[in-house]
Amino acid sequence: MVKVNENFLKLPGSYLFSEVARRIRVYQEAHPEAEIIKLSIGDVTRPLVPEVVAAMHAAVDEMGTAEGFHGYGPEQGYEFLREAIAQGDYAARGVDIQPNEIFVSDGAKSDCGNIGDIFGVDNVVAVCDPVYPVYVDTNAMAGRAGEYQEELGKWNRLVYMPCVEENGFSPQPPEEIPDIIYLCSPNNPTGAVLTKDQLKVWVDYANAHGAVILYDSAYEAFITSGDVPHTIFEVEGARTCAIEFRSFSKTAGFTGNRCAYTVVPMELERGGAKLNTMWNRRQCTKFNGVPYVVQRGAAAIYTPEGRAQIMANIDYYRENARVIREGLTAAGLECFGGVDAPYIWLKTPDGVGSWDFFDQVLDRANVATTPGAGFGPSGEGYIRLTAFGDAQATRTAVERVANMFR
Amino acid sequence: MVKVNENFLKLPGSYLFSEVARRIRVYQEAHPEAEIIKLSIGDVTRPLVPEVVAAMHAAVDEMGTAEGFHGYGPEQGYEFLREAIAQGDYAARGVDIQPNEIFVSDGAKSDCGNIGDIFGVDNVVAVCDPVYPVYVDTNAMAGRAGEYQEELGKWNRLVYMPCVEENGFSPQPPEEIPDIIYLCSPNNPTGAVLTKDQLKVWVDYANAHGAVILYDSAYEAFITSGDVPHTIFEVEGARTCAIEFRSFSKTAGFTGNRCAYTVVPMELERGGAKLNTMWNRRQCTKFNGVPYVVQRGAAAIYTPEGRAQIMANIDYYRENARVIREGLTAAGLECFGGVDAPYIWLKTPDGVGSWDFFDQVLDRANVATTPGAGFGPSGEGYIRLTAFGDAQATRTAVERVANMFR
Repeated sequence: MVKVNENFLKLPGSYLFSEVARRIRVYQEAHPEAEIIKLSIGDVTRPLVPEVVAAMHAAVDEMGTAEGFHGYGPEQGYEFLREAIAQGDYAARGVDIQPNEIFVSDGAKSDCGNIGDIFGVDNVVAVCDPVYPVYVDTNAMAGRAGEYQEELGKWNRLVYMPCVEENGFSPQPPEEIPDIIYLCSPNNPTGAVLTKDQLKVWVDYANAHGAVILYDSAYEAFITSGDVPHTIFEVEGARTCAIEFRSFSKTAGFTGNRCAYTVVPMELERGGAKLNTMWNRRQCTKFNGVPYVVQRGAAAIYTPEGRAQIMANIDYYRENARVIREGLTAAGLECFGGVDAPYIWLKTPDGVGSWDFFDQVLDRANVATTPGAGFGPSGEGYIRLTAFGDAQATRTAVERVANMFR
Repeated sequence: MVKVNENFLKLPGSYLFSEVARRIRVYQEAHPEAEIIKLSIGDVTRPLVPEVVAAMHAAVDEMGTAEGFHGYGPEQGYEFLREAIAQGDYAARGVDIQPNEIFVSDGAKSDCGNIGDIFGVDNVVAVCDPVYPVYVDTNAMAGRAGEYQEELGKWNRLVYMPCVEENGFSPQPPEEIPDIIYLCSPNNPTGAVLTKDQLKVWVDYANAHGAVILYDSAYEAFITSGDVPHTIFEVEGARTCAIEFRSFSKTAGFTGNRCAYTVVPMELERGGAKLNTMWNRRQCTKFNGVPYVVQRGAAAIYTPEGRAQIMANIDYYRENARVIREGLTAAGLECFGGVDAPYIWLKTPDGVGSWDFFDQVLDRANVATTPGAGFGPSGEGYIRLTAFGDAQATRTAVERVANMFR
């Protein structure tokens, strides 16, 4: 008789975004006239830029000819894209990452989950609190999280690093030394960033203890502050302790195009095993590469025109972030993030609970948000707002929320 | 200190196709004038058909407009594609599969590996011998295969089901009752198929023992024989014991486009858990859907024009299979498969070893093949030939091999 993976059965039922969607649906049904603006979901809305569209059309045409057809590609990604990434995202910043350290994939979400395959089950995993749920759920599925404690909203084998107002939403090295440390900067959901000095502390800590940092840098394109590294490999010592996850989703509006990459440096070894070799084996065995057409589209953002076009979109979203941050601050609310990140982390007024404030904003301003408590216990008392919407709708949403406090 | 997944370190080093590629390269360097024809790799060569190309162009255009842009899609695939699959691949054959039982993915290889996530580590897994290496390697990585025994070419916890001439290359229910059974029909590498009656034996066996059949049907489009089911769900009882893997790779030349799907019926439960719910949770947590443009391309093969165009390509490959099978049989060689499958399983003459015969054919006919021994111990004494090449090159290759025996 087949035994199912019992760890799946321990996962708490409802997923944050499903519950948000359900509440919006229920409200809309009861108030069909309400024009709800969603500042809740972290999905982009600007179309693919012309250079990407042109590159994808050209690739589709190639695929329709005998000479230009591409069948199975390299599992790690085409050389043209790995080279472009190595040059454009690393060499251009003075960071030496070689193409054979880059693994192109269908998404940072997939990679952040799948990376667990190369690690043993008995590692201690540290996550920020609040946190992007994928890190937690994938480790729970693999048996690294232990048991879920409903009353605490925590798993008993995970180490939680509170990111709260008192520490500037910056995780601190925990007392119990973890083996695997997830860091995300610019952060989802808080919009906080790690400076080079802060990141150096983590790199030294990981190297000292033989830990591995899983560094999610999906929102890198939003960084404007000079002291915030765009890649963990700007920090000395990172090549012996870090794996970096990057994505075209937010950088180039690829959420519906599915392309990302993971960097595993050659020097990264544990127990005598090269993690680059292990990840390569994992990808070659359980993955078969990203569509040729999509890889051509991704490569197009490394041309000067492509670069200018995607940065115009990023600027559009940045302006939304500014509008949200400044508008709500002016209304007397306390906002964090939103400078180097597309996320604004709003403190609920008067200690109102996340879900209660979510309901109030939905009801009184017809604006959908994401309750901070859904990202972990330390997210209680906050809601997350995203800058990925339409500019006019974002302004309207901010006015409506501000009006609640006039 | 991080502990790596020790199971990875047990995997034997060289991968079959890398070794084949290496030997070809070495030969080509020593004989630069040789025009080597590859009947070795299972990759398609015909371009994408016009209906698919048109649908992908239209979708790329949509993605370039604010109104037509598609961000994150459903992790399970768009409804338009799941509906088309349910209708075109199942209802059209009188089989009731609902869209919510279909999970669109980036490849059958990914799914065949990732499906292991929902099963416990302590299940006993049965595989055919010879076998598509992905089933074995992914289970080895997950710790279900035990230890690799170099001298036997086998893992000590896997149950091997020999598929040899004596049993018509058809696996027989093993004495030790497994929990998970991988079946592949039409088979890679032998080109053998399971008839409806043969499959019924397996379905009854799995239901009787609470086992789950993982049914790889990636080569379904090649079936011509009336008694060979196109889906395991044509067999009564399969809905309570089987998961089916299907792919657009060979059906529609999508090896470079990356699209496949997995069917998990609602009735399939083990230990009180619904496998459909578990796979849904797995995909929602560790996967983020297939590119919109690719899904539009896949949906285009369910139009009458699309269907006619892809079947013309399949007919092209089928003719190659016939040319190989009949040409080599006429030369006095013994061939299996190649009727309902793109693979021909050639018995080496005079009991020559697989790798030796590979070298002989490469040297004397300048034709690249795949040694059967690379697929498992029972593949010794065979080589695999594929029908996916250019028609003229395939005819030339067959003549050259035939000439070795004149």
